[in-house]
Amino acid sequence: MKGAGSMILVLHGPNLNLLGTREPEIYGSDTLQDVDNSLNVLAGELGVELDTFQSNHEGELIDRIHAAREQGVRGILINPGGLTHTSVALRDALAGVAIPAVEVHLSNVHARETFRQHSYISPVAVGQICGFGVASYQLALRGLVMHLAR
Amino acid sequence: MKGAGSMILVLHGPNLNLLGTREPEIYGSDTLQDVDNSLNVLAGELGVELDTFQSNHEGELIDRIHAAREQGVRGILINPGGLTHTSVALRDALAGVAIPAVEVHLSNVHARETFRQHSYISPVAVGQICGFGVASYQLALRGLVMHLAR
Amino acid sequence: MKGAGSMILVLHGPNLNLLGTREPEIYGSDTLQDVDNSLNVLAGELGVELDTFQSNHEGELIDRIHAAREQGVRGILINPGGLTHTSVALRDALAGVAIPAVEVHLSNVHARETFRQHSYISPVAVGQICGFGVASYQLALRGLVMHLAR
Amino acid sequence: MKGAGSMILVLHGPNLNLLGTREPEIYGSDTLQDVDNSLNVLAGELGVELDTFQSNHEGELIDRIHAAREQGVRGILINPGGLTHTSVALRDALAGVAIPAVEVHLSNVHARETFRQHSYISPVAVGQICGFGVASYQLALRGLVMHLAR
Amino acid sequence: MKGAGSMILVLHGPNLNLLGTREPEIYGSDTLQDVDNSLNVLAGELGVELDTFQSNHEGELIDRIHAAREQGVRGILINPGGLTHTSVALRDALAGVAIPAVEVHLSNVHARETFRQHSYISPVAVGQICGFGVASYQLALRGLVMHLAR
Amino acid sequence: MKGAGSMILVLHGPNLNLLGTREPEIYGSDTLQDVDNSLNVLAGELGVELDTFQSNHEGELIDRIHAAREQGVRGILINPGGLTHTSVALRDALAGVAIPAVEVHLSNVHARETFRQHSYISPVAVGQICGFGVASYQLALRGLVMHLAR
Amino acid sequence: MKGAGSMILVLHGPNLNLLGTREPEIYGSDTLQDVDNSLNVLAGELGVELDTFQSNHEGELIDRIHAAREQGVRGILINPGGLTHTSVALRDALAGVAIPAVEVHLSNVHARETFRQHSYISPVAVGQICGFGVASYQLALRGLVMHLAR
Amino acid sequence: MKGAGSMILVLHGPNLNLLGTREPEIYGSDTLQDVDNSLNVLAGELGVELDTFQSNHEGELIDRIHAAREQGVRGILINPGGLTHTSVALRDALAGVAIPAVEVHLSNVHARETFRQHSYISPVAVGQICGFGVASYQLALRGLVMHLAR
Amino acid sequence: MKGAGSMILVLHGPNLNLLGTREPEIYGSDTLQDVDNSLNVLAGELGVELDTFQSNHEGELIDRIHAAREQGVRGILINPGGLTHTSVALRDALAGVAIPAVEVHLSNVHARETFRQHSYISPVAVGQICGFGVASYQLALRGLVMHLAR
Amino acid sequence: MKGAGSMILVLHGPNLNLLGTREPEIYGSDTLQDVDNSLNVLAGELGVELDTFQSNHEGELIDRIHAAREQGVRGILINPGGLTHTSVALRDALAGVAIPAVEVHLSNVHARETFRQHSYISPVAVGQICGFGVASYQLALRGLVMHLAR
Amino acid sequence: MKGAGSMILVLHGPNLNLLGTREPEIYGSDTLQDVDNSLNVLAGELGVELDTFQSNHEGELIDRIHAAREQGVRGILINPGGLTHTSVALRDALAGVAIPAVEVHLSNVHARETFRQHSYISPVAVGQICGFGVASYQLALRGLVMHLAR
Amino acid sequence: MKGAGSMILVLHGPNLNLLGTREPEIYGSDTLQDVDNSLNVLAGELGVELDTFQSNHEGELIDRIHAAREQGVRGILINPGGLTHTSVALRDALAGVAIPAVEVHLSNVHARETFRQHSYISPVAVGQICGFGVASYQLALRGLVMHLAR
Repeated sequence: MKGAGSMILVLHGPNLNLLGTREPEIYGSDTLQDVDNSLNVLAGELGVELDTFQSNHEGELIDRIHAAREQGVRGILINPGGLTHTSVALRDALAGVAIPAVEVHLSNVHARETFRQHSYISPVAVGQICGFGVASYQLALRGLVMHLAR
Repeated sequence: MKGAGSMILVLHGPNLNLLGTREPEIYGSDTLQDVDNSLNVLAGELGVELDTFQSNHEGELIDRIHAAREQGVRGILINPGGLTHTSVALRDALAGVAIPAVEVHLSNVHARETFRQHSYISPVAVGQICGFGVASYQLALRGLVMHLAR
Repeated sequence: MKGAGSMILVLHGPNLNLLGTREPEIYGSDTLQDVDNSLNVLAGELGVELDTFQSNHEGELIDRIHAAREQGVRGILINPGGLTHTSVALRDALAGVAIPAVEVHLSNVHARETFRQHSYISPVAVGQICGFGVASYQLALRGLVMHLAR
Repeated sequence: MKGAGSMILVLHGPNLNLLGTREPEIYGSDTLQDVDNSLNVLAGELGVELDTFQSNHEGELIDRIHAAREQGVRGILINPGGLTHTSVALRDALAGVAIPAVEVHLSNVHARETFRQHSYISPVAVGQICGFGVASYQLALRGLVMHLAR
Repeated sequence: MKGAGSMILVLHGPNLNLLGTREPEIYGSDTLQDVDNSLNVLAGELGVELDTFQSNHEGELIDRIHAAREQGVRGILINPGGLTHTSVALRDALAGVAIPAVEVHLSNVHARETFRQHSYISPVAVGQICGFGVASYQLALRGLVMHLAR
Repeated sequence: MKGAGSMILVLHGPNLNLLGTREPEIYGSDTLQDVDNSLNVLAGELGVELDTFQSNHEGELIDRIHAAREQGVRGILINPGGLTHTSVALRDALAGVAIPAVEVHLSNVHARETFRQHSYISPVAVGQICGFGVASYQLALRGLVMHLAR
Repeated sequence: MKGAGSMILVLHGPNLNLLGTREPEIYGSDTLQDVDNSLNVLAGELGVELDTFQSNHEGELIDRIHAAREQGVRGILINPGGLTHTSVALRDALAGVAIPAVEVHLSNVHARETFRQHSYISPVAVGQICGFGVASYQLALRGLVMHLAR
Repeated sequence: MKGAGSMILVLHGPNLNLLGTREPEIYGSDTLQDVDNSLNVLAGELGVELDTFQSNHEGELIDRIHAAREQGVRGILINPGGLTHTSVALRDALAGVAIPAVEVHLSNVHARETFRQHSYISPVAVGQICGFGVASYQLALRGLVMHLAR
Repeated sequence: MKGAGSMILVLHGPNLNLLGTREPEIYGSDTLQDVDNSLNVLAGELGVELDTFQSNHEGELIDRIHAAREQGVRGILINPGGLTHTSVALRDALAGVAIPAVEVHLSNVHARETFRQHSYISPVAVGQICGFGVASYQLALRGLVMHLAR
Repeated sequence: MKGAGSMILVLHGPNLNLLGTREPEIYGSDTLQDVDNSLNVLAGELGVELDTFQSNHEGELIDRIHAAREQGVRGILINPGGLTHTSVALRDALAGVAIPAVEVHLSNVHARETFRQHSYISPVAVGQICGFGVASYQLALRGLVMHLAR
Repeated sequence: MKGAGSMILVLHGPNLNLLGTREPEIYGSDTLQDVDNSLNVLAGELGVELDTFQSNHEGELIDRIHAAREQGVRGILINPGGLTHTSVALRDALAGVAIPAVEVHLSNVHARETFRQHSYISPVAVGQICGFGVASYQLALRGLVMHLAR
Repeated sequence: MKGAGSMILVLHGPNLNLLGTREPEIYGSDTLQDVDNSLNVLAGELGVELDTFQSNHEGELIDRIHAAREQGVRGILINPGGLTHTSVALRDALAGVAIPAVEVHLSNVHARETFRQHSYISPVAVGQICGFGVASYQLALRGLVMHLAR
């Protein structure tokens, strides 16, 4: 990431607004605000700016991805939540704007129900990071920035 | 259900606003308003209050489920319509708020197309009732109240 | 249900005689006799008579269904137990006598092993109710009576 | 069939006692007694004796097959009904006594539900005849006698 | 079969010209000519006329089925050979001319390779007879004539 | 199409607003506005009026289909985008309003990823047209008008 | 289509010669001759010439496709009938001559038996049109000509 | 097994009464009586008592398992025969009484037909022993006694 | 191959007449005539005679295989083309005449579409050779001759 | 086992060296040395000698099996660990040396993950014993010796 | 990671020794030595020590994992290469030693062949990181250290 | 093959050291030494040198393939034995070194168990030869040399 002003879009999919309150034994006690705060600190270190957005609506997430292209967003960090396993439209949105995206999950999706082991998003993403709780986001941001710097 | 003021959220998913007009040979001629009216009568008998909501938007249903937790809703009665078979996000919303939910269908989904025989919602619900037309809702409300009284 | 004398056959399939003793954390502590007693009270309220029968033998259940037609039974309430998932013969018996039947399960079968998610009985039943413990029976009887009154 | 006294066991599986009354548009209006009567006439022509048995109990059918070996039965004509698709035990009984058996169905099972297209019985039978209504039995008896005469 | 002059088309599919020479331990030693001769004798008894045709070409079999409609053929007896398991076009031809057809096989196809257990032809046929060697044809002709007489 | 005033609803699903910019080697360089303009010219020739709507939100598409019934829309031309493969709710909306619909795709979906070869929409549509780029829409409009004129 | 003399090969696969007589409730009452006549009228409008060929023989269809390359045929319009679902050889013929081809079906194959939902032809075709009855051909010819003009 | 009087129930499922006569090349020439005799000798050595029961009726086997709980049976040794692969009811009976059970088979079921490789019984059993002919029973009794002694 | 006069039948299936012109990047630039010429040279070295036949018609290939038995052909070298994956009839023809056959493919079928990885022919062939372009034929002829010499 | 000097090879596959330390709630607290010691005691009683070998390397296990043939080993007792479900090479080694082998597992593999329910080894083994912890080995040794004595 | 001396085992599976030379368009031009060097730098920053090991032998990787427990290794970073998709033994080794492990892949395995989308390792790992080339390792080490510090 | 000194690596996978002794009715009586000797004779004729290696260890085979690249090996002839069906690591090794490889099998793997019909190796090989016994190797060497000479 050569200069300042590099914008990264952070997308939180359905139910992530519950973070810190929903099933804490699985997802931990940090809230989504906590996650965003710590991500912003890391972003400062890495020399990028973040724009974060959460929605429970597939359509709003798609709209936001489309807008990213207009805004010159350099990369997308996305936790698609339950849409990971069911949304071809979200996949097509990411493929359509052709902005490098990293898929992130709080839990280790590969260790849960079988239907969580298939992702429509992964094949159009740079890579996938899962299982580290909120640290997954930190790793994903680092990974995305490293990818963009190649 | 010990006291008055116990709130039950009744959620009608996609296309249920068509009730009474859509394929009446399958779904009967009662409208959604008729359903809600009769449910309210039964709710009065059972000592609970109802809050009903219909939407064709997955995201709005999820938002409404999240709000239910803030409001202290005691139980959810949900007919997820076509989302039954396709929405992991809706399932995760129900699991996330941890409010007891009963899944209800007008038609006998197990006697229709194969894809209607799988529900993402059932495994996180108390139980499922289907096949009784609008009476399915009456039974589901009774079932939910009995469950909460245990 | 227009008049008195309307007979409903209540069929309990294999292992339901263990009720109240078998895996109480799943099935509760009411015995089958408790279930039948409370069903009879409800039947009185609803203006129907019950004839109840339990067997661990597929053949006896089929014989009993056949006899129901001779007796002018108006409806059948059946918990097929493990036969739900394996008995085409039981399904054919219900289809053969053409008496409206409601399928009932104590536990939420859709939240258990995969093989419990398929029912040979559902496609020939009016509807299915599951997950409410012994209250499932109460709901099923109401549902059946409402169905017959249509 | 060279001599008199050749015994053929005719086995009717579950629900066949309903014949003539059950879904006549599929199975016709002849009763099981009619079928047996006409089979006996044909048996006379073909020089064999028939012993007919119907049961809705898998176990009784197996017991009867075992007994056949003791009695020196020469061949078995079996309509296993719904057990066709679900009973390994019945298959093993036929394989165990090693008496030539012909599988017969009233309806064309291959034109019905998918689960009716698989038979556990066929692989241990001489052959299968289906789709001719009660005439299926006539053909099956002829086929069995021809097979025994080879 | 009310009158004389009732024409039945007998179709032998691919490789049946090898009959009597091909794998005799499976198919017996009668030649196709032997089969046709004995069928003609039986046809005489049953008061029908036969028109027999063998081809290794799917297209010729379809052409012949089409021609049957022009000729007023009353029924078709068909051993589709290997096309049984692979030809939708042959199935569509039989469905298209709407002449009652009986499917026949020399061997018990249900006891052989898995791929031989599925037939594209069965669902559009009156019924299926298999496993009796050349006697399968005799039974099928009887079955077809009985079917037409209903 | 007998008179003027015949209204056709043209629905563009998720990501079609990207048309002309998204993966042009697959979808061509015409924008959605270009598509709508040329469709309107053709509509004029065919004597129908068009009402076009694009959304990335499943719920809005369903709402729009419901509204179409109120407005007396005669037919629907729909490119469901990624929802083709995942939305039972959209399918139910089309079935519920019972307005003839034609499914259209820019690319040949049958030549792409396996998951694009299954459509929940097709079984409730008049027909499907795919693979002709923006010309798919022209053909679909002609097809729909011809269908309505039958 | 720039000039006169552009030749389009129209291929009708197995059983299409029955058109107008076979299952008219599905396929309509136009004969294949009617279809070809109306296609020729449209061809005149579009400035192309048609060469039409029907066969029930897979081999003849393949031979005709091969010949098309010798003749400088510009495009192929093919209704493969039942071969759609079973013929790799036909697919390879189309791929081998590398002439743009459009797949057409009278009925909506995606709304019929499961086996009709897979096409070996689609992946090597420009596109697919189905469900419009004989109008499917008109649309396909237009689509093919538009494709060639690109 | 600390004291005398420890009762083990030995259950032989369908067709095991044929032992010694049925397919001896697979099952050996010992009769069921021989098996029980030798088991009793071993039981004496191991300080347990046996109660043996054979039935071809699923229902009777279930009844016997239920009775075992009343009798204070300590363990069950069961060869479910063909029911192994088809009976959920038998599985539920064993789980319901919660008596440790060992599954035993004469033949190596994993080396036979595919359908014999799945057991509904195994997941609720202590373990499985197969392939040793009648010695399988000896090993199973030892294994059960060792398990109870843990 | 001890003596002169040993006849080998070389069968080329559908589309192989296009060789040298069809997709040369996959199949190379040699024509079928080139293949046959070089095969004849090799045949001379190996002391066998070749009879070559190409057809796009499954039926003609089967007829030719049948004829081979009459002619005393010693072995068959067959490239079944697309029929490899779809023709049970061709398989049955090879099994029926019981002449050793070697299956050959120009391309490495195991590295292409999934449906090309299953062959109906292989299980009745001596062996399979694929992936060497026209050299596959040379190797197959050598392999067949070596097999016959064993 | 007629004489002294009969050698049995005991093979412990990958991770069995961890026994007694690895997941003791599943596998118990006995070490592999404990197992071997107690097996040797039993071997003495049974009149056989044991040669035991553990490796985490598939190749070393195969080498050891090959060596067993050179050494005149009479039988093999093998716990293949995770290779049970993945190693065709190990299966081929056992089949290749043709020494009778018994498959043994500590845990009840049929009650664990689905992938543990398939064994490549079972079809080439005498039989399988699982679920008895270290007692599984004792039973397997007895079973193997009984098998060899037949 | 509180103190110095915390040891992390870095395991490189089969073919990773080829890194930098093997398919560089997929895996980049860094060698395994480069990877290890940069990992060591990062380890220094993070206050952990690394022990790295590469092997093409499943058994050696398992042996090394077992040894890690003896050495008090705190965490494992593993790129299992092709064993990811085929080795239950490797999975059992990781589960057996109960040392937290992170699975890492250079390429985005979810965007490659279907068989690469299933991992036997993931369900016993903390999490999975893939698709970032050699940076995947950097992220995995950070993730592992953050996990250990929780 | 232009010059002398061209090195070909011949790899024999697990259990091939048993050749000549293992299941001779399937694999013949030639030993691996015999195979190598005759291959060397042929190599001399073809102007190449052979380096042969057998191992029962997947890891050693991979190591040997890696070494081949260092040595300038021109081609690989590999019989992967049971690893054919289970080893992604071996496949990746061949793909990683990018040396042309030919897959060879003694038996006709396509005529054996279903699991032997899938090869992980084939898609990265030039071609496959199977079913000719030890002659398969001769053909494979010829095929490889011809491939290299192209």
